[in-house]
Order: sequence, then C-alpha cells, then structure tokens
Amino acid sequence: MAGNSFGQAFRVTTAGESHGPAHVAIIDGVPPGIPLTVDDLMVDLDRRRPGQSKIVSQRNEPDVPEILAGVFEGHTTGTSLAILVHNRDQRSRDYSNIKDLYRPGHADYTYDAKYGFRDYRGGGRSSARETTVRVAAGVVAKKLLARAFGGHVLGYVVQVGDVRADIADPAAVTFDQVERLADGEANVVRCPDHEAAARMVELIEAMRSDQDSIGGIAEIVATGVPAGLGEPVFDKIKADLAKGLFSLPAVLGVEYGSGFGCATMRGSEHNDVFVAAESNSRQRPIRTDVARLAAESNRHGGMLGGITSGMPLVLRAAVKPTSSLPQTQRTVDRSGAAAEIQTKGRHDPCLLPRFIPMAEAMVAIVLADHWLRAKGQCLDSPALP
Amino acid sequence: MAGNSFGQAFRVTTAGESHGPAHVAIIDGVPPGIPLTVDDLMVDLDRRRPGQSKIVSQRNEPDVPEILAGVFEGHTTGTSLAILVHNRDQRSRDYSNIKDLYRPGHADYTYDAKYGFRDYRGGGRSSARETTVRVAAGVVAKKLLARAFGGHVLGYVVQVGDVRADIADPAAVTFDQVERLADGEANVVRCPDHEAAARMVELIEAMRSDQDSIGGIAEIVATGVPAGLGEPVFDKIKADLAKGLFSLPAVLGVEYGSGFGCATMRGSEHNDVFVAAESNSRQRPIRTDVARLAAESNRHGGMLGGITSGMPLVLRAAVKPTSSLPQTQRTVDRSGAAAEIQTKGRHDPCLLPRFIPMAEAMVAIVLADHWLRAKGQCLDSPALP
Amino acid sequence: MAGNSFGQAFRVTTAGESHGPAHVAIIDGVPPGIPLTVDDLMVDLDRRRPGQSKIVSQRNEPDVPEILAGVFEGHTTGTSLAILVHNRDQRSRDYSNIKDLYRPGHADYTYDAKYGFRDYRGGGRSSARETTVRVAAGVVAKKLLARAFGGHVLGYVVQVGDVRADIADPAAVTFDQVERLADGEANVVRCPDHEAAARMVELIEAMRSDQDSIGGIAEIVATGVPAGLGEPVFDKIKADLAKGLFSLPAVLGVEYGSGFGCATMRGSEHNDVFVAAESNSRQRPIRTDVARLAAESNRHGGMLGGITSGMPLVLRAAVKPTSSLPQTQRTVDRSGAAAEIQTKGRHDPCLLPRFIPMAEAMVAIVLADHWLRAKGQCLDSPALP
Amino acid sequence: MAGNSFGQAFRVTTAGESHGPAHVAIIDGVPPGIPLTVDDLMVDLDRRRPGQSKIVSQRNEPDVPEILAGVFEGHTTGTSLAILVHNRDQRSRDYSNIKDLYRPGHADYTYDAKYGFRDYRGGGRSSARETTVRVAAGVVAKKLLARAFGGHVLGYVVQVGDVRADIADPAAVTFDQVERLADGEANVVRCPDHEAAARMVELIEAMRSDQDSIGGIAEIVATGVPAGLGEPVFDKIKADLAKGLFSLPAVLGVEYGSGFGCATMRGSEHNDVFVAAESNSRQRPIRTDVARLAAESNRHGGMLGGITSGMPLVLRAAVKPTSSLPQTQRTVDRSGAAAEIQTKGRHDPCLLPRFIPMAEAMVAIVLADHWLRAKGQCLDSPALP
Repeated sequence: MAGNSFGQAFRVTTAGESHGPAHVAIIDGVPPGIPLTVDDLMVDLDRRRPGQSKIVSQRNEPDVPEILAGVFEGHTTGTSLAILVHNRDQRSRDYSNIKDLYRPGHADYTYDAKYGFRDYRGGGRSSARETTVRVAAGVVAKKLLARAFGGHVLGYVVQVGDVRADIADPAAVTFDQVERLADGEANVVRCPDHEAAARMVELIEAMRSDQDSIGGIAEIVATGVPAGLGEPVFDKIKADLAKGLFSLPAVLGVEYGSGFGCATMRGSEHNDVFVAAESNSRQRPIRTDVARLAAESNRHGGMLGGITSGMPLVLRAAVKPTSSLPQTQRTVDRSGAAAEIQTKGRHDPCLLPRFIPMAEAMVAIVLADHWLRAKGQCLDSPALP
Repeated sequence: MAGNSFGQAFRVTTAGESHGPAHVAIIDGVPPGIPLTVDDLMVDLDRRRPGQSKIVSQRNEPDVPEILAGVFEGHTTGTSLAILVHNRDQRSRDYSNIKDLYRPGHADYTYDAKYGFRDYRGGGRSSARETTVRVAAGVVAKKLLARAFGGHVLGYVVQVGDVRADIADPAAVTFDQVERLADGEANVVRCPDHEAAARMVELIEAMRSDQDSIGGIAEIVATGVPAGLGEPVFDKIKADLAKGLFSLPAVLGVEYGSGFGCATMRGSEHNDVFVAAESNSRQRPIRTDVARLAAESNRHGGMLGGITSGMPLVLRAAVKPTSSLPQTQRTVDRSGAAAEIQTKGRHDPCLLPRFIPMAEAMVAIVLADHWLRAKGQCLDSPALP
Repeated sequence: MAGNSFGQAFRVTTAGESHGPAHVAIIDGVPPGIPLTVDDLMVDLDRRRPGQSKIVSQRNEPDVPEILAGVFEGHTTGTSLAILVHNRDQRSRDYSNIKDLYRPGHADYTYDAKYGFRDYRGGGRSSARETTVRVAAGVVAKKLLARAFGGHVLGYVVQVGDVRADIADPAAVTFDQVERLADGEANVVRCPDHEAAARMVELIEAMRSDQDSIGGIAEIVATGVPAGLGEPVFDKIKADLAKGLFSLPAVLGVEYGSGFGCATMRGSEHNDVFVAAESNSRQRPIRTDVARLAAESNRHGGMLGGITSGMPLVLRAAVKPTSSLPQTQRTVDRSGAAAEIQTKGRHDPCLLPRFIPMAEAMVAIVLADHWLRAKGQCLDSPALP
Repeated sequence: MAGNSFGQAFRVTTAGESHGPAHVAIIDGVPPGIPLTVDDLMVDLDRRRPGQSKIVSQRNEPDVPEILAGVFEGHTTGTSLAILVHNRDQRSRDYSNIKDLYRPGHADYTYDAKYGFRDYRGGGRSSARETTVRVAAGVVAKKLLARAFGGHVLGYVVQVGDVRADIADPAAVTFDQVERLADGEANVVRCPDHEAAARMVELIEAMRSDQDSIGGIAEIVATGVPAGLGEPVFDKIKADLAKGLFSLPAVLGVEYGSGFGCATMRGSEHNDVFVAAESNSRQRPIRTDVARLAAESNRHGGMLGGITSGMPLVLRAAVKPTSSLPQTQRTVDRSGAAAEIQTKGRHDPCLLPRFIPMAEAMVAIVLADHWLRAKGQCLDSPALP
C-alpha cells in the first residue's frame, strides 16, 4: 500500500526503476517564490552520480534533470513540483544470468515474496538509482532551509572498514574539506580528515583488487536549525530523521549524539549542561518569547524530547559493504535449487562516498517538513491585510 | 502539526500528559473479530508499570485500562478502538522548583522553544507515562500478528553499562527466560542471560546508591514473520521499525542485523547465503506462488531491500541513562540565568527493564500495519460470494 | 482501514458507539495558547443534544464533556487534545427485536456486509451520537478561526419538506436570529425566517402525529474568511468542505453558491464580476502583497479554483427524512427472510434542527485545517529571534 | 501544504501546468500483475481530449501518454506507477492581455491571494488539462475494479441548460448508448437519451453563436460494487466520492440517490425496502458469511451509513457554464482597477461532454481505494504457504 511518499507538509513521492525510461519525483508543499534552476539541482546530482572517480562505479550517466512542473519564471509556484531524470545508460544487456537467481544481500527474493514477480533489470525499483530524484528533492529542501533560517546540511565519511576519521567538531566541517583535498584535487572518499581519507582510498582500492567490498559510517550534521522543530510523540524529529536515513539502501544502523556510546555512560556524565546563548549565536528558538540557550556539550545531538534544541544536529549511519561482488557467490534460483552467481557490471566497492549526498537529502527533507509543520502550528501569524 | 498518530492501516493516535486526568489511545483499522479483554491488556501494562521491583521507579500505579469503544461482546468490531488509562497517582505536588527551570536531558526547554509554554508537571506530554497506551495498542497488534501468521515479538536487555549478555540465538530466547529466573523469581532486569542479569542488577543498585543512572541496549526479535512485508522505498520495514523505536523516549541509536558492525566487514563475509527452507519451517513468503527460502546466517536481520525475508527480525536500541538524577546538577532558568536543580521523586536508575514492553509494542504495531498493507495490496483476494 | 480521522494539520480522530461507555475525540495540531474551557464546549453541545424542545428527540443527556489532555492552565498546549463525553443514558434495553433485523435506511446491513457482525445497540458506531465529539472539536476550530482572522461559521435551516425560508443575504443572518424568535423564545427549528420557522414546526409536528418524518435543507455560511485558503487540485476547499458535510449522517446532497441551479445558467449570467474591495472590508487575501477584491455577486459561493475568494462561503446540504419510524415497515432479517420492524424509542421526526451544529462543526474544522496549511506553506515567516 | 495527492491505499499524486512541458501522475499502491498498456490508457484519454467534435474545444492534442515506471513486461509491478503526458500544443502565445487581469469565474485572483503570483499561461495549474493524468489513473482503477469484482463505472450527461434526459434505469445505460447514436455516429454530448442529446447539441451550438456558455448535470453510475466498501465515520464512501467529484473543476453540487429531492420526502416514502437477492445477482457483500440482499428501490443510491449496500451507486454532479467567454466581460486588474476582458482561444461552450471521463475516473479511483482498504482490514486472509 502506498509507500512511495515521504513527509507531511513537504512531501516527496517518487517512481522509477533502474532500467526503465526515467525516474520522477513530485515534491508537494514547497512554498512559493523560491528561486530554482536545473543548475541548482546539478550540484548534488553530480556528487551522487557514478563515474566521478576511480573508487566509485564507472557507470557514466550525466543525470540531467528536467523540471516538468511547479516552477515559473525561475521560481517555485507553490504548486506541486515535478522533476524527471532519464535513465540514459540503458544497455540492452542480457539479464538471463540473474533473471532466475536471487542475488545475496539484494531485494530479489523479497520482491518476489511480496509481489510474485519483479523487474529484474539492474535491481528495478530497489536500485539505488532511485535516489537521484530524492537528491534533487533534497536540493529544494536545502534551499528552503537556507532561506527560512540559514540552515545547512552537510555529510561526510567518518569510517571505512577499520579506518576512522578524527573529527574535532562536526559543526565546523566545511563543504570544501569534504569535497576537496588541500591540493585542490577531488576528495573522492568525502572524508574531511584528509590523512584518514588517503588510507580509506587505499583500502577501497584493495577491496576492488580483491573483488570484494567494504562497509563504513557516514556522519551528517545540520547547523543553524532553531530550537522547536519536531513533534513530541510519534513524529519526533529523531524518529523522522532515522526513518529518512533508514529509507536509504544499505543502511543497517542510525544513531545521533552519543548514540550507542550512551549505553556505557552514567546520567551524570551524559547530561549536557544548558547555558545562556550569545545574542548573536546561531542557537535560538522558533518562539520570540523564549530565551536563547546553548549547551556546553552535545551528547544529545541537538534533539531533546523529539524536538530540536538549537544545537547542531549530529547523526551517523552505518552502511553495509556492497552486496554485488565480482567474485562467485553461492545462492539459489527461483525454485530454491542451489546455484552460483557472479555480479558483473560496474559496482562501487564502497558505497560511502556516493551515500553522502543521499543522506544529506533525506536530512534536509525531514527538516524542511518539520519547519513547515512548526510554522503552520506554532509561529505567530503575521497580521492579515 | 498533527504528529500524534502512527501507522497507516493500523493507526495509533494518543493524547495525555503525565499529571493530567488520563492517557487515551485510539487505534484505527483493527480487523473485526479479534477477541480482546482488559485482562489481555494488563499483561504488558503490568510489565511496563513502575513499582514492579526494587530496581525500577517506585511510583505505584495500577494502570487498569478501560476499553471505551471498538469492542462488542468481547471482540473487536472493526471500528476505532479507544483505550483509556487514568493517571491515578496525581499527587498535588509542589512544582515550583522545576516550573521555571530547564532540567538537563529533558524536553523542558525544547517544548518552551516550540510552544511558548508547557505543562511542567512531571514532564507533561513528554513523560514516558504516555507509553502506557502505546503498550496497550501493542497488545492489540500482537494479537493480530499471532492470528494472522503466528507472529511473535519479544524484547530483552542485552547490555547495561559495561555488562553485556551472551545470547547465542536471538530467535530462541523465550518469554519465560526474559521474565523469570531459574528459581522462579522475577527477572527484574529482563536479560535472558541470567548470569549477566545478576551483574546488571548489581550495577543498577550501585547507580542508585551513587544518585546516578546508567544506559544500556535492548534487543527486540520478531519471529514467524513471513517474507514480503514492507515497502520498497520510503516505507521500508526497517525505516518504519526504526521510526517506531526512535519515537520512544531516551533512544539514541537503532540498528538491525549486523548493525554498526557492518562498517568493518567485507561484502564476501557480510552477505548471507540463501538456501531452500524446509516445507514445515517458519520461513515462508506471503505469496503462495514463490519458493520458501531461508538464509544460512542472519546478518541482514530479516530484512532486505526494505522487505522482510522470512528470517527472524533482530533489532537493537541504545537507551541513554535516565536524565532525572537525585544529585544536584547545573542548569539555567527560563530567563537563561544559571541555576541548580535536583530532581526528586521516583526515577528508574536504568530505563532498560521497563523499556522492553514499550519497544515490543512499537515493533508489533509496525508489523501489524505492514501486514494489513500487504494484505490489501498484494495478497490474492478470496473469491467474493 | 483507518478511516476515523479527518484533516491534515488540524486532525480530528474519534471513537465511540451509541451505547458504549463514552465517545472520545483526539484533536491534533491545535496551536498552543488558545483559551479553552468545558463551558466553551457546552454551547454547541447543548445545541446538538436531544431533548431541547418538543420537536426533537426526547433522549435527555446532559453531554458534559471532560477535557482529558492538551489543555493546561486554561489554554491549549499545542499537544494533542482529548475530549470525552460519557454516554450516561445507557438503558439496559431489550434489543432482541432489532438484533437480527436490518432497519431500512440504516447501516445495519452494510456494517454486517463489511465487518461480519455489528454492535446493534442503538446503531453502535453508526449512531449520530458520534457527532457529539465532532461538535466539541468544532468549538475548538471556531475559536481558532475567530482568533486567526475573525472568521465565523453559522448554519441554519432553509427548507423542511415544502416549506422554504426566504433569506435575503446569507452573510447577514445572525446567531440570534437562528437561536431565538422575536419574543425571546427558542427558535426550535433554527430557521432565521421566523414566519417560515413557524410553518416548519407545524409540519414537523404533523409528521410526529403521522408516525412519519420529513427531510430538509441546511445552509452554512462562513464569513471573514480571507482569500487564499484551499489547495488547487485534490484538496480544493470545496472538496474538503463537501467531504466534511457528506461525512455527517443522512446527507444526500451538497452544493455551494449557485449549486445545482448553475445547470440552467449561461456563463454570461453566472460569472461574478470582481471589484476593488474597501480597505476596511472583510474581503482580503492572506498575502499582504496582493490587492483586496470583492465580487458584485456571489454565485461562486466564495470559492474559485478550489481556493477561497474572500467572499462569504455559502453551502447547502440536503438531509434525508429520519429513517427510524414508529410505524411498521417491511424489511428482512439476517437470513434474508421477510420481516416487519417498528423502531421504538426517541427519534427526531426531522433531523435538521440538530444537524445545524454538526454542519457548522465540520465547516469550521475544514477551515481551521486549511488555515494552518496555508500558514505553514504560504505566509511569510515572522523573523526568528 | 501537500494537497496534490488523493486516496490512501490507491493514491494518485499529480503535477503539471497547462503550458508547462508535461503533466505527470504517480499512482501508488496498485496491486501487482494487472495488464496495462498505453492503448488501455488511450481509450479514456481520447474521450477527454479537446477536438473530438464541433461542440467541444478545438485545441487538438493527441495526448499520448508515456508509462515511465511501474509496469514490466506488460503488467503492473506493485511499485509506484508513473504516467506522463506531454503538453505538445504549447503555442508561444502572447499572454500580456490576461497576465495582469483577473478572469471572472477563474482561479487567477485566488491563486495570487494564496501564492503571491501565478503561472498565468492558460490557467497554469488550475487548467482542466490537469485532469488528463487523472483520467489515465482512472483507467488503472477501472481495470482493478473489473478484475477484483467485475465492477464498472459509467457516466453520462443528464441535463444541459433546460434540456433534461429521461433515464429509466441508470444501471442499465450502456457505454455504447453514451458514446454512439443509433446511426453509429459519435454521440458528441454523451447523453444516452438520444432525443434529448439532439436538443442538447442544438442548445450548445446556440451558445457558441451567442459567444456564451451553458451549465449542466452529469450522472455517474457504478455497478457490480459489492456491499461493504467505505468507512463508517469520516471516510464514508459518499464523502470520498463527493470529495473526488468536487475536486474536479467547475463542479458546484454533488448528490446521490434521491439527492436534494429528499428534502420534500417523508421517511415512509424514502426508505428503500430490503429483500433477499437472487444467488446469481450482482448484489453481494464482501463477507462470505453474510446474506445477499437487494433493495426494491434505490433512493439510497447504493450507500447506507457511509458503506456500499450492493445496489448500484448513482451520483450526480452539477457543472457550471464555462467561465471563459469570447464576449467582453467586466473585471479588474492586479491593482484592483476596473478593466475589460475577452477570453480568446478554444473553449467548450459546455463542459459536460468532456467532464464525463473525468468524473468516471474520480469515482473509479475512490472505489479502487476503498476496495483495497476493505480487503486489507476486513476480508479473511488467504492461508499463507
């Protein structure tokens, strides 16, 4: 039943299969008057697409989106926005080798279990290619956050296999550190600790030689978010952010703030102490009649009781190693008979670098949704004419 | 904006504040004909309530629910079900000490930031007492799962502070192991590894003496769930389960299967190998025309591509140490001025034991929702008369 | 599947059966800070309840609501509001005469067809008694409209059988004209044309003597509503208003503005001419940067393209004659065998007088919902601190 | 806020403006395995499109849809279906004459009031061209109804101006009578009373000569619908059908069964008498354990208590005269200054003939949605493997 929409006030609905004609997103609830062009969308679509570097999949698709509706004279109209991305690289491949086999770690069997059959070409609807249009929707959300309250969402890689980055202050990481190395070269692994980044690249290349893959962890930070977003009970902001991140392929864990580390902590060391915030700080509530507070530390990851606290939001997602492997793996066919499978084609030996823009998109979409929800219910109305 | 409902087909809506007259849940979409009594509800409400043992809060509330609607002659009618739990233990306490202070780790400030003011009595809407009616809704969901496909949801504690349980097979843990020790005494910490359980109790008691608290990790397992539940994109079953668990108070992390451990694994060691399932096994798809498969291992935690695989679902949630502490903590008041606070009253030094029925409820509610959704869309219709 | 909720931003969810313990509504999304007391709720609950006069049902229930949640120190908190109304007049009647019979014009058979069985006591969930809590929710919505933009919703009876009222200007009708006659006596039929009202009362009394019932038409007017509420496509304001009115029992038709009369009109006579509005008029848009317009006439009933125009909203609903009749009617029993039925008990020979507060409630709820939706998406944000 | 989606289980989301690149619909929740081709879609798209005859708009657009997603090897996959229709006839017209004027009877002013500006080309989002993709979605819904229970939806014109058709039995009208005259010629006005049809055509042609337009009434009938669809309270089937019809442009009234005629009827003449249904009749409930009933008459229009009764559903919608007129009309400009306007271009002097497939689509979508909802909640589950 209808499970291809996300969000209530800022609602994204998608369709599309890996080897079908196109992917399309309808984005509903966008405020009118936001400047939006195809070039805006290209920034993150280029970060998401394959073929950017030697460590990611070589499938080379330009991914130029078309804005079909909802923009007039360069601005959003307030009516539903439609963005289409054609699947240009549809090789007429021979799928007979995977048509009747269930690839390990993939959704082949579970789709059959649910629907009775599936579009087996390149994973069909389960392909991560679906995230192209989510990333485009994320750009719209990011523009909304920037205009509404100067909000900013940035993700980066903090772990690949055993290589861990050392990030002193998540809120201080810059887009440039994530995308570029000191010498101006592309930071292909998107880890802002450039020393660790070099070792991550090495590890990923070793995986490729081994016909293997490797997992990792991404961290996503939202800054400038005012206190007061999120709903107290079911639609806690942490719950919707977690749903957004878990809705991405290959995510097996999500945590925020101290995360799983909280299990071994005492309350007296875990509680963050509130202090008054500087009047020019980024910490402020959505209500004008409430004090500006900050916290001396951020083990609460910017969320308390399901509502943002004004401190930076800090989340992490664990991403499994790519399931598609060039090496031979054991499996079964549609009848349940034992078989072997080799997944040819262009696959990333590590999903993390391209996961970053997808994760940013989902976080931005959740924040845009909750901003509009809070604005409708809780902000004072401007006086009517 | 409307954030007090959860689920699409099996939809739970709640209201209530800690020290208001009552909590109430309306459960919509329940199939007709399910036997349901107040005694059914009491089982899990008793597991959730305070005062069960020396290691949990001593607030002693019987929590006897009333079924206000939706049940006739002992069976659900198919129309909306309403369950009310009175807040009987409303002491006319003096709240002047916390009325104008922001308790560390609590939602006091974030509620003010959002709404401009708050019901400060015992946490108001942010109190975990709200979960009483969720737990009641969870009982209804559990009955539905049992009738629909023999499904079963069970949670237990796997870590408190540094004490970790050793669980050989999550799917083999029994309700009895969770609730009772070998000698028949109550297993107050709800850890099925009874040797670890004893050390957890010791640690929790030490925390109470220290006027402190401690975090931990819960594991929730769903067995008997057929392959085919969940939606491919946004409403992935893992995404909805994560949202459900993150919607509970104090949860800072959720993972399933290999979880964060996947970060250091290779694809060749992470992928689980499919095999044919025995024809009498619990592994089976919702479609009658598809083979019964199992997997040799369960690093995928029973979910692939957002859809259940037929293997047991295994999730873990990290729960922070109780924020309310008897010891003095630094904070600020509503004006932002520095202040000190001591939280008196009855608080659990460790939230984990009572978290178990809450987590089970949310998992059961998500599975009931996705079962009804899959049944509506994907199952063959029985012939009409 | 979950069909007991209404609205997106201002969302009402209800439960309850005619002869169960209570009806309850949870109202989600209410802005914080609205003053609300039980006395506020009583005004419309008293207009809705039976036993007000000789022409309505004599079932005498005080219908005193309890506010279970969502109000603190006399103001809405912004969290979900719960209102409960006990069903005090639950006579332990003998229902054996209708238990196995299908009453003509009622939902007995259709409930059985859907659910397999039903709560047969007094109509169970299908009883109009369910509207008590909707009426209570409507009071909350009315208070919101009044505060947000001075909006006001008023309904009245324009036709009973062949007796038609003459209403010169729907927007000029007052609450007093609807509720009181010139001599200060209660206007029991709620028709503001008091001459027609007298003839309507006569007709209704004749129906009672005849052991029969009669249909009629209600008109509902919303004034002060700014231009700009409603969504262009599916959630047109006219569509949501119609859904709201059709969700009430016994409604067989809804029209607005010229309504069915438009069928015989030419475009040149139907189009209303726009003119500039006085700067102190009630006609104004929600956007401060757009001109204030009015129209010379109001055949469009205050809605164009699914969005309010600033002119008064004028709707009409056709309500069928009461199905329950004291006289003997032919029907069948559960097996399909022919039978006779007499519906004893207290029934209104005309539903219209008590329908008015129900219809006002649904119109107010729709407008409150669309106001919050427009405020979230389209109004300029007040500057954050 | 997000208002471009319709339905819960069968959910249609649209985007597109009259003179933008394309309209697109995403249809979510479609069961897997339904055969679907572009040719299937063409049938109703051809009935909806302009240029079919001399009495409708001459804008000649082929409206060939593309299925972008959700169909594989000729069958629906169960994942979201995307249908795109290009707007091929985008003349680079000069809109300076209407850019700053508010057309009477149109949404120009209300869009500005809501969004601050609008896409003024051809009505933008408010154009009835948006219904192309709804009609396509309606075809999918119709196929679902036919497969699920042999359901069928048919609409036709019953009134144009003062010309009324005489329809003895709505459920007996055939598609052929609606689309063809006795001589095989196209029945351009879609009235199955061919004598009346001739007079309607005459009237419409007179309107065109007069540079004027005329309103009318459509009737939509659904046959083969089993008893048991619809929800008791807010999502009554009549409420959702009314919302669907009112969501179409130009609809000012909706009624079903006896409709507004019920106002002058007595209960004793209005109540329909239940009788046992023949075992091979089309009247039957969704539950196998309940008797098959019919009614001797159908003043209840196939719906009781918000749930289908098994009798044919009969609805009527009043459609206003086309607002766009070639003759000069008075209006105002964006500043509120008086102005004159002439709407050039190709407009239907009567909207009714092309309204028919749009109305059928909305009725079919509502029934498909409620069928899936009832199937999920109320039908017995087929045994799992």
